[in-house]
Amino acid sequence: MSEHISKRYDHELEGVRTGLLQMGGLIEQQIEHAMRGVIERNLPMLEEVIANDKKVNAMEVELDDACIHLIAKRQPAAGDLRVIMSVVKIITDLERIGDEVKKIAKMGRHILESDAVFVPRVELRHAASLAVDMLRRTLDSLARMDVGSATEVVRQDKEVDAEFKSIMRQLITFMMEDPRTISCGLDLLFIAKAIERIGDHSKNMAQYVVFMVKGTDVRHGGLAAMEAAAASD
Amino acid sequence: MSEHISKRYDHELEGVRTGLLQMGGLIEQQIEHAMRGVIERNLPMLEEVIANDKKVNAMEVELDDACIHLIAKRQPAAGDLRVIMSVVKIITDLERIGDEVKKIAKMGRHILESDAVFVPRVELRHAASLAVDMLRRTLDSLARMDVGSATEVVRQDKEVDAEFKSIMRQLITFMMEDPRTISCGLDLLFIAKAIERIGDHSKNMAQYVVFMVKGTDVRHGGLAAMEAAAASD
Repeated sequence: MSEHISKRYDHELEGVRTGLLQMGGLIEQQIEHAMRGVIERNLPMLEEVIANDKKVNAMEVELDDACIHLIAKRQPAAGDLRVIMSVVKIITDLERIGDEVKKIAKMGRHILESDAVFVPRVELRHAASLAVDMLRRTLDSLARMDVGSATEVVRQDKEVDAEFKSIMRQLITFMMEDPRTISCGLDLLFIAKAIERIGDHSKNMAQYVVFMVKGTDVRHGGLAAMEAAAASD
Repeated sequence: MSEHISKRYDHELEGVRTGLLQMGGLIEQQIEHAMRGVIERNLPMLEEVIANDKKVNAMEVELDDACIHLIAKRQPAAGDLRVIMSVVKIITDLERIGDEVKKIAKMGRHILESDAVFVPRVELRHAASLAVDMLRRTLDSLARMDVGSATEVVRQDKEVDAEFKSIMRQLITFMMEDPRTISCGLDLLFIAKAIERIGDHSKNMAQYVVFMVKGTDVRHGGLAAMEAAAASD
């Protein structure tokens, strides 16, 4: 491959990566708005989050398309191909995070529209900020090709899971004490579940970043596999 | 590309597709065993489903790897590349179905181990058999590159969603009437949720089959986009 072509390839790959980071930025904002909408009972904000999911979807289609064209035109060798294939997988996880955010906004809207009076008082803020932090760290590890940071995301996922379990226990207590809170409690439970899934998707993406940089598939090896890959040359 | 190379490519692509169908077959069986384990209260069967998820994961890694090697070695043109990229996306959805099945088995185990006495009597069988049917039809549409069959899967997804909502309503009624059923009711709710998600993943896969065959991205256009693509030449 001539240097000229190789530079063009790098440039295009960089374009895809920039697009991915932009998509990630939009989704970060979506999560924050969805949670504010739920907590501050702001219906217009929730409606905007739901409408914005179309933008996320359009970005997914565009980026997938760019990846296919990049491979077809440049026919990259194994190493570069690994990077693009990881990007292709990351795109899917990002879009699925978008779907979870839309679900949060819809659940929030459902709570507002049903004029629920018996709302269990659970704290979702901490779990949500953990999930946003995981996503941000993942995007950062992608931008800087930083395996150590990606490993930290896998560690954080355990915290989000623990938060979810704690929220579920609190909700069960509320619901058992006053069955009138059950209906709204389930909406809140599904919001907590969506937050937990955002953590899962961020973890998946962080594992693809490791694959991208190190060439080691750490998807099913747990934290130990991540740490071993991060420590290797 | 000489005919000789092209034939080898076809042969390898066929190998990946066969691997995908085998993975799909294993997952179908996993869903059936998980549901039988839950309904017949069969703990060893649930344990086996949980253990078998490792096989599903190994198949994912192997197939992803085969796809990357296929692209690197054969450098396929746009049309063939579209097929492989769809396969890469389908692999992820299949593995995620595997994760949902594992969750069902773990929830079932949790119900058995907690010796729950107050078990709400909801019927999960119909939803589960719909989801299995969707998966089977998707794999079939993939084997035969049949867009019509893939469109039917998207239609069926609405049925699974309706089943989930009905199960949730029933569970809410049980839980409100007798709060002692809340804890076990939530386990059953998450099993129903996992079934609904199996339907979602099958729908995603069916949409990739359409992309594979028709080159039209129908992921975000709903049933109408699928039907239009199926009707086109």
